[in-house]
Amino acid sequence: MSQLSIRPAQREDIATILELSIGGNAKGRKIVDDPTDADAPEYQRAWDQIEKDETNFYVIAELEGKPVGCMQVNILHGLAGRGKPRVQLEGVHVRADYRGQGLGSQMIQWASEQAMNSGARMVQLTSSKVRPEAHKFYEKLGFENSHEGFKLDLTK
Amino acid sequence: MSQLSIRPAQREDIATILELSIGGNAKGRKIVDDPTDADAPEYQRAWDQIEKDETNFYVIAELEGKPVGCMQVNILHGLAGRGKPRVQLEGVHVRADYRGQGLGSQMIQWASEQAMNSGARMVQLTSSKVRPEAHKFYEKLGFENSHEGFKLDLTK
Repeated sequence: MSQLSIRPAQREDIATILELSIGGNAKGRKIVDDPTDADAPEYQRAWDQIEKDETNFYVIAELEGKPVGCMQVNILHGLAGRGKPRVQLEGVHVRADYRGQGLGSQMIQWASEQAMNSGARMVQLTSSKVRPEAHKFYEKLGFENSHEGFKLDLTK
Repeated sequence: MSQLSIRPAQREDIATILELSIGGNAKGRKIVDDPTDADAPEYQRAWDQIEKDETNFYVIAELEGKPVGCMQVNILHGLAGRGKPRVQLEGVHVRADYRGQGLGSQMIQWASEQAMNSGARMVQLTSSKVRPEAHKFYEKLGFENSHEGFKLDLTK
């Protein structure tokens, strides 16, 4: 198994994150993002918000210095569970030509270890119903498929 | 339909939130929270974190001054979707003896309107698979049951 290096993403990584995310989108999903437009005010403003939020960050996974994966981590502080936070993952993506090498597993395990060390009680994420292979992947890593994931699209 | 008043929760509401949350837990779920223990350092520390986080807040829904529901709102800033945030709801609960009056709908609609007005592209939440009635409720409100919700329990 190749050894990944995982580092916090910086503003300069916006294009890389967008590129990895588009490559990882579920089939049929409308693409609205554009890595060549990373300097656009919408992305820059979003990064301002992320940067000032201690509970929200992206990481880049690199193999020999090449970015091959990304993931967004949100720490959700709450009362339930005697005040122990949840860690939520969004946008977990591995570059298509690097899949099947266990890189995604290493990313999720890294996140789970970080979550446990920081006192979180849970790691949670949702995965599109069109991706049964991803569901098997998460179950293999110990996740329970216990919930339905509902989304209300406000852009329609 | 009764008219709800929805207000941001304060530290003094911790016991109320815990009480409403326990009353709304899925059957069979182990209860670890205790409203009579709201002054415990774990809850107080969690509230400190919530209070200093602009993207994380609880609301209390009141009917004639009586708290009958609660909900946690997290604004998840991110890059995907041209930098428009998601709004995530956790712990949406209505007091058992006040269900069936459309109060939950009013709470979700309130959250959706707030989300839309603040430029979010999506409202998202997960609902336990043991609750088909909740799934119908969210679908009726326009949510799409498009994802599987995975949880990794770190307390086991």
